[in-house]
Amino acid sequence: MTQPNALFLSFEGIDFSGKSTQARLVYEWFRQRDIPAMFVREPGGTALSEEIRRILLDRTYGTMCAEAELFLFSAARAQLVRETILPALSSGIHVIADRFHDSTTAYQGYGRGIDLDAVRAIHRLALNGVYPHITFFFDIPYEESRRRRALLNRPDDRMEAQDETFYLRVRSGYAALAKHEPDRFIVLDGCRPVEEITRTILQSIQERLT
Amino acid sequence: MTQPNALFLSFEGIDFSGKSTQARLVYEWFRQRDIPAMFVREPGGTALSEEIRRILLDRTYGTMCAEAELFLFSAARAQLVRETILPALSSGIHVIADRFHDSTTAYQGYGRGIDLDAVRAIHRLALNGVYPHITFFFDIPYEESRRRRALLNRPDDRMEAQDETFYLRVRSGYAALAKHEPDRFIVLDGCRPVEEITRTILQSIQERLT
Repeated sequence: MTQPNALFLSFEGIDFSGKSTQARLVYEWFRQRDIPAMFVREPGGTALSEEIRRILLDRTYGTMCAEAELFLFSAARAQLVRETILPALSSGIHVIADRFHDSTTAYQGYGRGIDLDAVRAIHRLALNGVYPHITFFFDIPYEESRRRRALLNRPDDRMEAQDETFYLRVRSGYAALAKHEPDRFIVLDGCRPVEEITRTILQSIQERLT
Repeated sequence: MTQPNALFLSFEGIDFSGKSTQARLVYEWFRQRDIPAMFVREPGGTALSEEIRRILLDRTYGTMCAEAELFLFSAARAQLVRETILPALSSGIHVIADRFHDSTTAYQGYGRGIDLDAVRAIHRLALNGVYPHITFFFDIPYEESRRRRALLNRPDDRMEAQDETFYLRVRSGYAALAKHEPDRFIVLDGCRPVEEITRTILQSIQERLT
């Protein structure tokens, strides 16, 4: 169903690792060249998924259990895949995703300790075969994430309000995923200058576009 | 963890099969005898689960995919189990549930055609071992459900607005579940008079309470 040259790119990492900045820069790069591309953020991207996003970030649901969180992210993703991503890819439109299913494996699987086989079974149902072609993992130390976070003048949302050991589990979860699927993952040092990182990303995209 | 005599009872069937009426009558029976009992309806029963219920019944999300629906019901249930049902049962409070996980197997599994093994894997994660002790399945023909529905003067919600073949699949799904777990299920003819059905239900509950 997918056009051979429509790429599905996901950008992953802990908060403030630079993934969203880079995802936006890559999207701009496509647009400036008039290459059809779409930007999606997770959770979100459809009316239903944005409604679910609102619930997930709402701190009044602070006691949400890990399983409910996993199912809510998966519901938002299932709808996003079918309503937005799959139709785009099928029309030859490249898709740039700020977070996708690896976030769920890293945060709810490795971070919250939900059985990884169960998480993978849920991905199979939610994704309907639509896995990213390239996943950029922005690796930064927890301290650097907190340093960048402190520069912002707003309270943490529900997902950001987690302790250090949680983030360490998530980060090492990402590292494990990247090690397990070296053909799909490109690991980037998130502490390098923004322009350098962008150059590395665009290089690997251009290799796949030709 | 569960007190030996705290019962978890679920009431299942297609819309207008009489399950909600009977669940309420049974709850009243417990209350009149000062036996500690709790009534929950699905989806719902916690702040988060009621918020999810609102989304699931909202007709503006008419194009919601079956997988998103499955995950939303499961998110609401995971939270209900941990926040409400398990603490109640652990304190010796009987729990009466108007719909529970069998609804998801019948509607999203048999009705919408989602792989039944995947549905069962999701139940394992959502339920955390908290399965009903007795499930009352109210069996009525589709025509009788529509006849009762026509007596109400309000529009269908998103779940009620389904065609006949869908309901036939759901009804035969329930029948298959009941056949597969005869020790847990009690099948009731939903066309019998209300008082007769209540008597049968209370009889089987009293057998388990002694």
